[in-house]
Amino acid sequence: MTRFDPISGAIGEAQPAKRHLADLRGCFRDTGAFERALAHDNRLVYTVAAVEPAAGEGDLHYGLGVIYPGLVGDEYFLTKGHLHTWRAAAELYIGIAGEGLMLLEDEVTRENRLVPLQPNGVVYVPGHTAHRTVNTSDVPLTYLGVYPARAGHDYGAIAERNFRSVVINRNGKPHLLERN
Amino acid sequence: MTRFDPISGAIGEAQPAKRHLADLRGCFRDTGAFERALAHDNRLVYTVAAVEPAAGEGDLHYGLGVIYPGLVGDEYFLTKGHLHTWRAAAELYIGIAGEGLMLLEDEVTRENRLVPLQPNGVVYVPGHTAHRTVNTSDVPLTYLGVYPARAGHDYGAIAERNFRSVVINRNGKPHLLERN
Repeated sequence: MTRFDPISGAIGEAQPAKRHLADLRGCFRDTGAFERALAHDNRLVYTVAAVEPAAGEGDLHYGLGVIYPGLVGDEYFLTKGHLHTWRAAAELYIGIAGEGLMLLEDEVTRENRLVPLQPNGVVYVPGHTAHRTVNTSDVPLTYLGVYPARAGHDYGAIAERNFRSVVINRNGKPHLLERN
Repeated sequence: MTRFDPISGAIGEAQPAKRHLADLRGCFRDTGAFERALAHDNRLVYTVAAVEPAAGEGDLHYGLGVIYPGLVGDEYFLTKGHLHTWRAAAELYIGIAGEGLMLLEDEVTRENRLVPLQPNGVVYVPGHTAHRTVNTSDVPLTYLGVYPARAGHDYGAIAERNFRSVVINRNGKPHLLERN
């Protein structure tokens, strides 16, 4: 059994990769707020640790993510988001602690939707769907992701055009807003 | 998000399938103890509910299992166990509540091993590996299983030759014993 720690983000022997504000340049809508936040403190935004037991056709990989609570302007702390290199690959997210949202965007139609991510809940991310996780709470959001071993991660497509919408805090509640 | 209930075994709209003692004829080693237990009460041994969001090449299915605590003779309550029809398909088990063990048996060499299954832990079941879950605690054992959509379940091979070993309670502790 591979043990994981919902607080530290460690899973088995995997060293969690750390993503700080500086790594997320271009992700947030309010670039002024981003530069001010970064000048103040290059905060840790999230960690992700992946376990890759085998790489055969029927194998699975999995990862543990922890997003810290925080805002850049009115936009919640978030992951870079990705598509799978093998576009047909789905991913299953399982809420472990804290609560947040997943932003799903169809690669082709660019239709998007928000889905809650909470403990005792599972989010199905179909193939061909860009996905980003957002912490809308004031405690760390921890989740497991499970995906086919051959899925692969494509961050480039997102880095280029970003998601069509952003998730902002409006009067204390998450709100989906079209990016200008 | 598809919510699940670790107590009732419900997940989303899926109706949990119920497996009672009478459904598990042939699984337990001590057939006398089995018949006596069954005559006394055809107890509910476990439930399993599967969610199948899509069936494409890159898709995933998942299920929630709840095994109730109990013994037949000195053998812990268990699932029938299965191989995947697509033998190369792996499965990921995630402990949700309670604790128990997974019995893994290589289809070819028939080597077997016991792996703990507990909350905040993940068990990787490689392809070509028969797997059965056993509740060694005195509360329900709840877990999620995630597998490729095209895995399929083959119960027939297990029904025919069973697992090579059994997990018995010896002085209050689980013990792996060769079946005679």
